[in-house]
Amino acid sequence: MKYPFYKPESINAASFAKYFDEINSRRWYTNNGPLVRLLTSRLEEYLDVKNLLLVSSGTVALQVAYKALQCTGRIYTTPLSFIASSSAFGWLGNEIHYADIDNRTLNLDPNSVRQLAALSEKDTVVATHLYGNPCDINAFDHLKNETQCKIIYDASHAFATRFQGQSILSLGDASTVSFHATKLYHTVEGGGVVFSNEDDLARAQKMINFGFNSQNEIEEVGINAKMSELHAAVGLVVLDDLGAIIERRRAIADQYRSILENTDVATTVVQEGTDLCSPSYMPIVLDSAYERERIQVSLLQDGIETRNYFDSLQSTTELFEEKHKVLPNSQCINKRVLCLPLYPELTSADITYICDRLQFNLANLRSEKPVSCA
Amino acid sequence: MKYPFYKPESINAASFAKYFDEINSRRWYTNNGPLVRLLTSRLEEYLDVKNLLLVSSGTVALQVAYKALQCTGRIYTTPLSFIASSSAFGWLGNEIHYADIDNRTLNLDPNSVRQLAALSEKDTVVATHLYGNPCDINAFDHLKNETQCKIIYDASHAFATRFQGQSILSLGDASTVSFHATKLYHTVEGGGVVFSNEDDLARAQKMINFGFNSQNEIEEVGINAKMSELHAAVGLVVLDDLGAIIERRRAIADQYRSILENTDVATTVVQEGTDLCSPSYMPIVLDSAYERERIQVSLLQDGIETRNYFDSLQSTTELFEEKHKVLPNSQCINKRVLCLPLYPELTSADITYICDRLQFNLANLRSEKPVSCA
Repeated sequence: MKYPFYKPESINAASFAKYFDEINSRRWYTNNGPLVRLLTSRLEEYLDVKNLLLVSSGTVALQVAYKALQCTGRIYTTPLSFIASSSAFGWLGNEIHYADIDNRTLNLDPNSVRQLAALSEKDTVVATHLYGNPCDINAFDHLKNETQCKIIYDASHAFATRFQGQSILSLGDASTVSFHATKLYHTVEGGGVVFSNEDDLARAQKMINFGFNSQNEIEEVGINAKMSELHAAVGLVVLDDLGAIIERRRAIADQYRSILENTDVATTVVQEGTDLCSPSYMPIVLDSAYERERIQVSLLQDGIETRNYFDSLQSTTELFEEKHKVLPNSQCINKRVLCLPLYPELTSADITYICDRLQFNLANLRSEKPVSCA
Repeated sequence: MKYPFYKPESINAASFAKYFDEINSRRWYTNNGPLVRLLTSRLEEYLDVKNLLLVSSGTVALQVAYKALQCTGRIYTTPLSFIASSSAFGWLGNEIHYADIDNRTLNLDPNSVRQLAALSEKDTVVATHLYGNPCDINAFDHLKNETQCKIIYDASHAFATRFQGQSILSLGDASTVSFHATKLYHTVEGGGVVFSNEDDLARAQKMINFGFNSQNEIEEVGINAKMSELHAAVGLVVLDDLGAIIERRRAIADQYRSILENTDVATTVVQEGTDLCSPSYMPIVLDSAYERERIQVSLLQDGIETRNYFDSLQSTTELFEEKHKVLPNSQCINKRVLCLPLYPELTSADITYICDRLQFNLANLRSEKPVSCA
């Protein structure tokens, strides 16, 4: 495979070895160690956010956010996201209610949530900034002010996204993020939650260590969601290179968009107010499921691996909600989105080649068969 | 502190660096990588067990065991265990029912479970092999045969325990284990489940990766409970030294027991049929809560750190079960157990010193105040 879909960032071995020796000489391998605390403060500074809690995965980050916010009512979310957005809550035994997406940004549509039910202060909206593109923040703020519901943003795709002058992670009652090895920024396995409220952070800090307070008493129903010192060390090493990584990925994403905007390949519409869409994924929207399938095969023959993000809507798995729901935008878009390779090692010539093959294959395909929305 | 309660095993830096370079050159950092698979097969061979699944923590191991066994009824467990035994299930929203312990072995008493309720095939008993001492396996087998309930053994203290010629991990419908840095064998953070049934393992394998089957379809409600390649590398390195670690710890535990059996310091009664109690902890049972408190303080003045395992009964936290329950044995024993330092670096002279100070302080204390069960 000449162009795999993704290559995780490699870890600078010399920098990691220094941290490893530190850890080993302290024999403090986990349990809120010095490197977890250092990484917390460095990330807070880097992102200019407060109340960051590092945890063991992006999935448990969603659970911790939900429980620390003391949510007890219904959960409303998008069917178009990585499965973790639903399974985090399904694992806890919660029923999940799906609203439809906006078919331009592909994000959860606040109006669809509003139409689904009369929200109360007990309910929670979990909205993913899909492919790094911000949700309609102003509309969700309005929904929150109106109903007092809680908003959790799943920012797992949106680590580097900036919106109206600030990190996207500073928005909502809580924003969660994944630091999985396949993400733009990673700690091998890991995640984080940024809380808007310090009390929620304090509750969450207990929750990720079995509910223990600082006097070693059990105060909350908790779990083990601690990031280890080894994973934090990886995070510190990758953070040193992050400026260059983001710059390179941003150049790649810009090149993709500038080539494709002059073709008939559709991309997603960037939410108004966005300063930077995290250059995490490069989604395109084809005309039909059939077209996506054919394009994916022909690109593969050209040595280009693409990914169906996401193969199926979470609302159709029958695992999380009892009834199949009609969600017209989600159902129309879902089988048509294809993500192109995006990682720092791709050169400008690589991107040109990928776009050329995409256009060539698409032109061939469209000349043989009329377009339809399958 | 001359004798801290615990020192985690340090990790051989050269061996770890070799694995790290392998991981880095593959850029396969997590998601059932080659080192996780290698560690799985090496641990299966070492323990002579089948159907081992490595996961990200001992706590999530309990959740995965419970869900993979498709348990839906009530959970019966011991109030005397590390909080994770309860909070794993409390986190899932399950109510927990506590039965009493056997006051000789300190393990969950099968008769107390039987008296609590009429169990059915939907119910689950979660029994900890406390301090590495096996539960009354034969009585639990009998209870299972009689009621068809499921049995999950929490073997987090019992990695090296052998019972009637086999690893304790091969018993029950599932046995779970923690590989936390403070354990006899560790992967920094991590855990495992050994299933008696291959189908349960297959279900669990999907569950720890968001429910994906091998065709990349969502088949189960899952979560991210994967062990990373870095943590697996630590496991492989520590496994190389494990024979020596266990031998040394066993010698220390034997020395403690042989000194203390000739004194008036009580220890726990080893379950009949046990070939080896995992030398994970060295518990002693004092005559009262008052005595424990005083002894702990005076040992600390002698440079010896001990630990109250466990500070409070889980049945009294009010987080997991609505009513305070009367559990006479648990309530009488819980405030009287004290664990002594136990790790390979302690020399024979250290153990003699610790036992001397314990006896001296206890004799002093008992001469000043009559014994009572507080």
